[in-house]
Amino acid sequence: MEWLDVDSELCPVQRTLGVVGEKWTFLILRDAASGVRRFDEFRRHLGVSEAVLSGRLRKLVEAGILRTEAYREPGARERFEYRLTRKGWDLWPVLVALRQWGDVYAGVPEGPVLDLRHRECGGEVRVVVECADGHGELAPRDVIARPGAGARTR
Amino acid sequence: MEWLDVDSELCPVQRTLGVVGEKWTFLILRDAASGVRRFDEFRRHLGVSEAVLSGRLRKLVEAGILRTEAYREPGARERFEYRLTRKGWDLWPVLVALRQWGDVYAGVPEGPVLDLRHRECGGEVRVVVECADGHGELAPRDVIARPGAGARTR
Repeated sequence: MEWLDVDSELCPVQRTLGVVGEKWTFLILRDAASGVRRFDEFRRHLGVSEAVLSGRLRKLVEAGILRTEAYREPGARERFEYRLTRKGWDLWPVLVALRQWGDVYAGVPEGPVLDLRHRECGGEVRVVVECADGHGELAPRDVIARPGAGARTR
Repeated sequence: MEWLDVDSELCPVQRTLGVVGEKWTFLILRDAASGVRRFDEFRRHLGVSEAVLSGRLRKLVEAGILRTEAYREPGARERFEYRLTRKGWDLWPVLVALRQWGDVYAGVPEGPVLDLRHRECGGEVRVVVECADGHGELAPRDVIARPGAGARTR
């Protein structure tokens, strides 16, 4: 099967981008991963209108990436916090990979804007592509990409 | 410095998405990483119009993510191939991370659509977040995120 004949509707990159393929999705996920949970905090940090933000949060809840949890401030009505689900947290490596590229190619001269450290030892945090059989970091030339069992031609 | 006060214009995730934050960017990069180089091949595989594709390729060339290389088929005029630059290949971990999530959450029952294997041993290929000091795979709870030297308040 040649790549150009493979039905790209099934491609896992394309299908992922069908769910999270807009810039704002990753900005909401970034904020959620940094501990932002409340509507007003997202709105303040992202600088979008209430209507736009509430539509975007709803889409992420519908996709199972965020879940809502009720809370109530004294004297106020019940509101909802937004928290990452397992499915949402599983996008964390994508966020860390975006951050890593940005530090190199879209950084600021003063140094990293976001400092990520291993909690235990203080070491730097990075994303690597590796072999599941334990052969360490792989470069693109170390990897063979082939249509798998789920692929079909168009 | 509290996260909500940090100027998110400098955030490396946000700045990366400013360059590659549209779905089509990653689909072009996916194709380029699979060996697609010629305009007509991109067009055939992505199913977009000539005008749209040529605008998108131009943006990626301007961003230094793709570069052009001249070629000439016998009897035809000179044309250009599009190849990933180092800057472009450095987005490969993002692609592999998107693919990994897609295989789990947007897959097809028949199995992986894209089979990635370590060329040397045939092992599966995966993305992990790790400690640069060699402490293996990290989960979000193992990582502390703090504003770094380049951060500034709004």
